[in-house]
Amino acid sequence: MSSLPPNLNALENLIDELKQLPGIGVKTATRLAYFILRQPEDFAHSLGESIQVARATLHSCTQCCNFTEQPICTICSNANRSDEIVCVVEEPSDILAFERSRHFQGKYHVLHGVISPLDGMDESKLKIQRLQERLREGVIKEVILATNPTVEGDTTALYIARLIKSSGVKVTRIAHGIPVGAEIEYLDGATLGKALQNRVSL
Amino acid sequence: MSSLPPNLNALENLIDELKQLPGIGVKTATRLAYFILRQPEDFAHSLGESIQVARATLHSCTQCCNFTEQPICTICSNANRSDEIVCVVEEPSDILAFERSRHFQGKYHVLHGVISPLDGMDESKLKIQRLQERLREGVIKEVILATNPTVEGDTTALYIARLIKSSGVKVTRIAHGIPVGAEIEYLDGATLGKALQNRVSL
Repeated sequence: MSSLPPNLNALENLIDELKQLPGIGVKTATRLAYFILRQPEDFAHSLGESIQVARATLHSCTQCCNFTEQPICTICSNANRSDEIVCVVEEPSDILAFERSRHFQGKYHVLHGVISPLDGMDESKLKIQRLQERLREGVIKEVILATNPTVEGDTTALYIARLIKSSGVKVTRIAHGIPVGAEIEYLDGATLGKALQNRVSL
Repeated sequence: MSSLPPNLNALENLIDELKQLPGIGVKTATRLAYFILRQPEDFAHSLGESIQVARATLHSCTQCCNFTEQPICTICSNANRSDEIVCVVEEPSDILAFERSRHFQGKYHVLHGVISPLDGMDESKLKIQRLQERLREGVIKEVILATNPTVEGDTTALYIARLIKSSGVKVTRIAHGIPVGAEIEYLDGATLGKALQNRVSL
C-alpha cells in the first residue's frame, strides 16, 4: 500500500492488520477498512474490544482442547454425558455441528487441525498426545474418529487408529454414504462407492 | 448462534460483531473468530487496537470529504496540484486508483456512494452539497465526473451535471471505451458501442 498518501498511516495499518486474516486479501481488507470508518465510532470500539476480550478470556479446555472460558468446558463437565465414548474432531466448529444434530451424548476431543505435510502440519502439532493421556486414564471405551472425509482427514484418522489400537480401546470411523435428502442421480461416484461398500443389512 | 454452549459468550459475541462486516456471514465470521483465537495474543491485541485507532483518528477532509488524519488531507493541501480541476469519485478507494495512474494533478471530491433508491441511497446522503459549496468559491473551472460506468454511477453523474451546469463550470465525464491491452474480439457490445460513439479524430 505504498501508494497511500502519507497522512493515512492509521488506515494503512488497519488494512495491513485485516489482510492477515484468512481469505482476506488487500482488496477485501480495504473494503472492510472503509466500511469500519463509515460506521459510528461505537462499532469500531466494540469490534476491537470483542477481538481482544475473546482472545484474552478463551483458552483450551484441559480435557477436550476446545475453547472455553472456564478451566474445563461445559461439555466435559456435564455429568449427564457419557465419559466412555469420545468423538475426535478436527476443529471446534465441528463440535457445534454434532451438537446441533443432537445425536451424540458422549464427550469430544479437538485435534485443532489434520496431518497435512504440504501445509506444514505434522502429527506433533495436533492434540494427539492429550488424547493418548485421556485414554490412559482407562475410562474411555470407544473413540469415534470424525475427521473430514478428505485425504488429510482420512490420513489423520488412520494414523490415530494405529496409534491407539494397542491400548485396547474400540476405534471407529463415522460412516460415509449418501447424505439424507440427497438425490442418487446427482451424487458423485466416490460417495456412491462408499455407500455400496458400507451397506447395512435390513 | 443459540447452539453454542453457554460458556462461550466471548466467542459468540466476537462472531456476532464480525458478521456485521460486509460480505461476512456467520460461517466466515466463525472461521475468522477461531483463526484469531489460534494466533498469539499480540495479534488480537494489535488488530483490535488498529480498528479503534483508525476509527478514532481518521475523519472527513473538510475540502474533499476523503478520510484523513489532518483537518485537510495531503492532496487538498498540496500546493503543486491545480485547484481549478476537480475529479468527483464515488469512494476513497477510487482516489487511490487515480493516484496510481499518475495522470491527474488536480483535486478530488468523494461522494461516499451513488444514488441508488433500492439501497436507500438518495442524493441527500451524498457529499453533493459540499461540492456545490466548493464550486461557489469560484476557483474550480472544471468538474470531471468519474463515477463508475454503472446505472447508478451514470445516474449520479447526470444528476450532478444538471445541478452544477448553471454555475458556469465546465462539466465533463471520464471517457468510456476499450481498456488498454484488451482484445476487441472478447469485448462486450456495450463497451464497443461506447468506443465507436466516442471515437476521436487522428
